[in-house]
Amino acid sequence: MFVKFSTMPKISERAELMPASPIRRLAPKAEAAKSRGIKVYHLNIGQPDIETPIEGLEALKHIDRKILEYSPSDGFLSFREKLVGYYDQYQIKLTADDIIITSGGSEAVLFAFMSCLNPGDEIIVPEPAYANYMAFAVSAGAVIRPITSTIDEGFALPSIEKFEELINERTRGILICNPNNPTGYLYTRKEMNRIRDLVKKHDLFLFSDEVYREFIYTGSPYISACHLEGIEQNVVLIDSVSKRYSECGIRIGALITKNKALRDAVMKFCQARLSPPLLGQIVAEASLDCPRSYAIHTYEEYIERRNCLIDGLNKIDGVYSPIPMGAFYTVVRLPIDDSNRFCEWCLTDFEYEGATIMLAPASGFYSEEDMGKDEVRIAYVLEKNELKRALTILAKALEAYPGRTNK
Amino acid sequence: MFVKFSTMPKISERAELMPASPIRRLAPKAEAAKSRGIKVYHLNIGQPDIETPIEGLEALKHIDRKILEYSPSDGFLSFREKLVGYYDQYQIKLTADDIIITSGGSEAVLFAFMSCLNPGDEIIVPEPAYANYMAFAVSAGAVIRPITSTIDEGFALPSIEKFEELINERTRGILICNPNNPTGYLYTRKEMNRIRDLVKKHDLFLFSDEVYREFIYTGSPYISACHLEGIEQNVVLIDSVSKRYSECGIRIGALITKNKALRDAVMKFCQARLSPPLLGQIVAEASLDCPRSYAIHTYEEYIERRNCLIDGLNKIDGVYSPIPMGAFYTVVRLPIDDSNRFCEWCLTDFEYEGATIMLAPASGFYSEEDMGKDEVRIAYVLEKNELKRALTILAKALEAYPGRTNK
Repeated sequence: MFVKFSTMPKISERAELMPASPIRRLAPKAEAAKSRGIKVYHLNIGQPDIETPIEGLEALKHIDRKILEYSPSDGFLSFREKLVGYYDQYQIKLTADDIIITSGGSEAVLFAFMSCLNPGDEIIVPEPAYANYMAFAVSAGAVIRPITSTIDEGFALPSIEKFEELINERTRGILICNPNNPTGYLYTRKEMNRIRDLVKKHDLFLFSDEVYREFIYTGSPYISACHLEGIEQNVVLIDSVSKRYSECGIRIGALITKNKALRDAVMKFCQARLSPPLLGQIVAEASLDCPRSYAIHTYEEYIERRNCLIDGLNKIDGVYSPIPMGAFYTVVRLPIDDSNRFCEWCLTDFEYEGATIMLAPASGFYSEEDMGKDEVRIAYVLEKNELKRALTILAKALEAYPGRTNK
Repeated sequence: MFVKFSTMPKISERAELMPASPIRRLAPKAEAAKSRGIKVYHLNIGQPDIETPIEGLEALKHIDRKILEYSPSDGFLSFREKLVGYYDQYQIKLTADDIIITSGGSEAVLFAFMSCLNPGDEIIVPEPAYANYMAFAVSAGAVIRPITSTIDEGFALPSIEKFEELINERTRGILICNPNNPTGYLYTRKEMNRIRDLVKKHDLFLFSDEVYREFIYTGSPYISACHLEGIEQNVVLIDSVSKRYSECGIRIGALITKNKALRDAVMKFCQARLSPPLLGQIVAEASLDCPRSYAIHTYEEYIERRNCLIDGLNKIDGVYSPIPMGAFYTVVRLPIDDSNRFCEWCLTDFEYEGATIMLAPASGFYSEEDMGKDEVRIAYVLEKNELKRALTILAKALEAYPGRTNK
């Protein structure tokens, strides 16, 4: 008989490795500031203030079920069929079978990694990158090999040579987010073709998170991973209705692939968790009926906010932001010593006329510790007047911050 | 430079290992039967036909939000506070901080395993057991060491010596489901105390899935893992509103533990997936207000169904079911060669007066291949008259089935 000598069961090594969310980590400090009566402008999180389409809200009010029962593990067929038409608008040609409904885009990433990556397998991710990819990679025991894109190059795709240098026998895929969270960068056709060639040459999975496709501001074409010819079996599209319909809370996303073997694998994970949220699916399906004016209104709103924010930022002494082409974030360089310290300081030690700002330290979007120390991510999900006020507060904060540098 | 020679990216070994759901696997055959005009009585899945509480449905109709936004990663505080009162009725003493809201009980199991188990770690599970535990163990790279409980002993807890035999340096926990899915067994105080002593002695986690606590029919006491003294830091309670309120579709469950280090670990997984479903939380919170009459009505309904089903089963020649003490399942021995074959045959090759039955082969609830071959799980989630009809069809099917044995 074997007897253990420890006195408390330990948590797993995986849990130790899991990163704490850089976006949500400072939340208690923000709560404390609010309880001191300080107004906090939330520029830290991608929770849009745009209203959910009325079609979705009305469908919610008219749910006339007596039993809120399980839905199919891959989601309602009617919803998946309607999504086929949605994607067709973007020249993404699918059948309902190609689409698996997930509990948010988050679950789509998790199930993609679980189904494609063995422990120790590697994926290459241009960074700064959405911090939770790292969490899902850790969940699957996989390793993210980062390639740094830089603010000075506007966060363009790093050269293919840099990717080639990282590819080895454990490399299983590349992950991109396009338009990009956190940088707002939109990959060009040339860049997407380079990715395609690399994926094809090395027989990799291409995980492509395209939840911000509605938010492209430059007139540049949106090149989906699904548009790339010759790698149809390699592409895993990650999607979500959260951002496009302001429906972050309903937890409805999708994992889309033409690769049947992969879909069969993903379905085993889907069946284990039984079904995606019933109510969210009903709302999301109805939201697909919202008129084009909803998207246009939203688009115009964000265009204005973007212009207001980027202009304002670049007018502050020592601050630099590239012009984001899509999504509703930008990564900004600030004249500071340490973005973690600065973001916390804004919540704990600073206020301007009874208000302060909450930003996301960019260091959480890089895997190496010394990266992003003078960068923050700003989400422009507030209306223009609030953004202007937040810009004023940022300028004042930078003047007062004891860790200001002279860049 | 390294070049791979395969021509298609492969799915992960984990995905290969993932079991297909024994409950959902036959679904396409059932669909095919229905499209041939055959009525299928679903005894295979724990989807209750009892109506969702009116309090929950009304709350749904009155959601008056303009933006369906993220909720906190651990769920709404108001909901968690109300749950404290719910658990107090069962002498489970909690604070809101002990409760983390998850996307169904499924996510609670997944996050518990992810947070507690390293790849290769073992947990001991009495079987037959809910099939998806295996799927979540595979997801975490952990190993389930089964201990067989037998129909002839009414599926009572196997002797502690059998547990001791399996315990080694990789053993990290014990998982129980109480009242049990699929057997309907309810662990006695004596059995629970034995489990407590074992957990304490070997410093294990005790994962206890208690989603069926409302469904106990014998007047025997419900002993929660949370009632066991001296192992408060070891217990992880898995819960869900799915069964007690007929709300399987809203995907609201909970992971409950007094172990702060574990909660902090689980929260990292929660933050990565951002939040549990917003709409489901609103419905579940309101459902906690349903009057005692809802639970009584539900209870009385199931008592009748249980009596009807078990009586009827034991009257069929060669069929044996123990009397389940809780939940709404029973594992039944049938005079057949192979339950997988029989369950499929019922859907593909049999009908009686235009109808057939769908059952869950019990082999899917055991980890060894030759186990449960003459057993099926029956869920009594249909009303009495439908159950009676289903019993008649089962008797006729057993007469006609070519693989009938002479037990």
